[in-house]
Amino acid sequence: MTTGTVRIHRHDLEAFCARVFEANGLAPSDAAQAAEVLVAADARGIISHGVARLVRYVNGLETGQMVPGAPVEVVMETPTSLVLDAHGAMGAPVSIRAMAACIDKARAGGAAFACVRNSNHFGIAGYYAMMALDADMLGIAMTNTAALAVPTFGRQMMYGTNPIAFAAPAGEEGAFVLDMATSVVPRGKIEGYDRAGKTLPEGWAVDRTGHTARDPGPLLDDMTAQVGGGLLPLGGEGEMFSGHKGYGLAVMVDILCSVLCAAPFGPALFDTPTSSGRVSHFFGAIRIDTFRDPGDFRRDMDRMLHELRTSPRAEGEARIYFAGLKEREAEAEAARLGIPVLRQTYESICAVGEACGVAAPPLA
Amino acid sequence: MTTGTVRIHRHDLEAFCARVFEANGLAPSDAAQAAEVLVAADARGIISHGVARLVRYVNGLETGQMVPGAPVEVVMETPTSLVLDAHGAMGAPVSIRAMAACIDKARAGGAAFACVRNSNHFGIAGYYAMMALDADMLGIAMTNTAALAVPTFGRQMMYGTNPIAFAAPAGEEGAFVLDMATSVVPRGKIEGYDRAGKTLPEGWAVDRTGHTARDPGPLLDDMTAQVGGGLLPLGGEGEMFSGHKGYGLAVMVDILCSVLCAAPFGPALFDTPTSSGRVSHFFGAIRIDTFRDPGDFRRDMDRMLHELRTSPRAEGEARIYFAGLKEREAEAEAARLGIPVLRQTYESICAVGEACGVAAPPLA
Repeated sequence: MTTGTVRIHRHDLEAFCARVFEANGLAPSDAAQAAEVLVAADARGIISHGVARLVRYVNGLETGQMVPGAPVEVVMETPTSLVLDAHGAMGAPVSIRAMAACIDKARAGGAAFACVRNSNHFGIAGYYAMMALDADMLGIAMTNTAALAVPTFGRQMMYGTNPIAFAAPAGEEGAFVLDMATSVVPRGKIEGYDRAGKTLPEGWAVDRTGHTARDPGPLLDDMTAQVGGGLLPLGGEGEMFSGHKGYGLAVMVDILCSVLCAAPFGPALFDTPTSSGRVSHFFGAIRIDTFRDPGDFRRDMDRMLHELRTSPRAEGEARIYFAGLKEREAEAEAARLGIPVLRQTYESICAVGEACGVAAPPLA
Repeated sequence: MTTGTVRIHRHDLEAFCARVFEANGLAPSDAAQAAEVLVAADARGIISHGVARLVRYVNGLETGQMVPGAPVEVVMETPTSLVLDAHGAMGAPVSIRAMAACIDKARAGGAAFACVRNSNHFGIAGYYAMMALDADMLGIAMTNTAALAVPTFGRQMMYGTNPIAFAAPAGEEGAFVLDMATSVVPRGKIEGYDRAGKTLPEGWAVDRTGHTARDPGPLLDDMTAQVGGGLLPLGGEGEMFSGHKGYGLAVMVDILCSVLCAAPFGPALFDTPTSSGRVSHFFGAIRIDTFRDPGDFRRDMDRMLHELRTSPRAEGEARIYFAGLKEREAEAEAARLGIPVLRQTYESICAVGEACGVAAPPLA
């Protein structure tokens, strides 16, 4: 049976993932952090970045793509900046370290930024941006990824889905948490349409001619073979719907993550069936009280977010959201009922656990 | 005769605009700065933000919307932050002051940010971001605008076209200069379709029902009357093409420009036929040498930008650009031949000059 959903309490799912990571060579503290970030994605309803990736993470540890205990190197450090070389470490622990450093430095100086190079998949960018919230700071997190998207008027994958996360604390409304890939859709969406035998909407991707792709199967083959074709940037094909803006945002992310810290960028990052490109990240924290009282800031944030979500709805639409609201509600429900995990995913992580001697997590 | 284009040397056009501003009460240094930013837009081919706006600026000065000599107030200042209250001053001079302060503070500390509230139209955001380039810094500039765009699943204009500018220096390739509104298109584009009697493409704007608008005339009327309908965020209607991402970026701009410095935001900013809402801005500068050698950074930027613009083109497409390349080429041509100004615009600015005793600028 591979349909339906099971629920697992957050603590149990984290403990399970941490044990799997430990069984694959991670130190306990690194394992706990990697597990926490992975499970946070599922708790927030972003299942593309959650425990469904555990298989890939373990595979990465087995193949040496991810290096447990890699000696993270401080390449450069000033009171407002930090460059870390992860030397292939897992993405989450080194990213938590970098973002925590930004927060510490911002506490002393007002604002700080960090780059991490030679890293691996770090999970949801929003996790790191949100680390700033309790410190009354604005949080920023970005990462580049394997090249999957094409420039405006191009047909070759030249940069990744390069997400941008930005978090700002509110009061009753929680927080504004933007966490967005700069491509229209992720590769996984194309794969979903392929499995369902559906035609792609115009404006998600281009084929090897550089124009809109409708058939997901050949597109995915061409992307894997890197012979042309790829995802479109936010705004779609050409300039009619401002695809050049999404393209520009994605390149900005590549500049901040890679050029700023002498890391590979663009098409130098690519995934093969057995390995992923070493990616790099960018983090930042800005202290709100260097601009105004954080309590007043949170009150105005509440007013803004409330105004947005209660503004007049389009006909037929049930709700208006703001960035992070859906995820916050998912997280609250997961806290009550357990985190929903697709049964298919549950079976795959149980198999991963079994292979390394870790008992399956109990169902909620 | 109101068709065709004339060319005017940059210095002459700046001198003309400066004299017009002086004749309307601006101090010489403020007038020169306002003129420089205005003319920079035309030189870079962004005619929507150039001297075509001179009429509106002079009107703003006459009605008191823009206050010449307004005492700019330092509301808050730390080594890494600055909040200015423009008290209705012209946008450009106070924005140059704020960005220059960011650069000075970043030179001392590494990174700095500034908010300006109670300000007016500041021209092209890219101008301020580019101020950081010669200082070997990354530059950031944003502004909110009158509410013109609707939230995803909404139908009421709740935030502006809120542009984001980001500049990073390169070597031979010049610079990467992203300067993008976070709406799919500006209001002016809708007006152009209205004048041409054309149907709007699906995904630019919604009508008063909150769904895609095709007829620009009624849409513009509804937007003016604020009875529903407005521009769509980058990504279009709903979530199919990720319109929620453009919506999120626009709200991020509103947070940084307004909530961070206790300024009005969202629908509290609106234009009437005779006045504009007082807008607010956000600026930032980050010193590259706190991460790596700026010369090495510029070399890698060159490599990235060259790779992007020479990557394989989509069939039928002549060129691939990167953000700021078109504008750089326009600026180079304007330096050789003079700045192109639509004859209709030329006649309008000559009339503005005549009304305040300033002779028309000579043609190139």
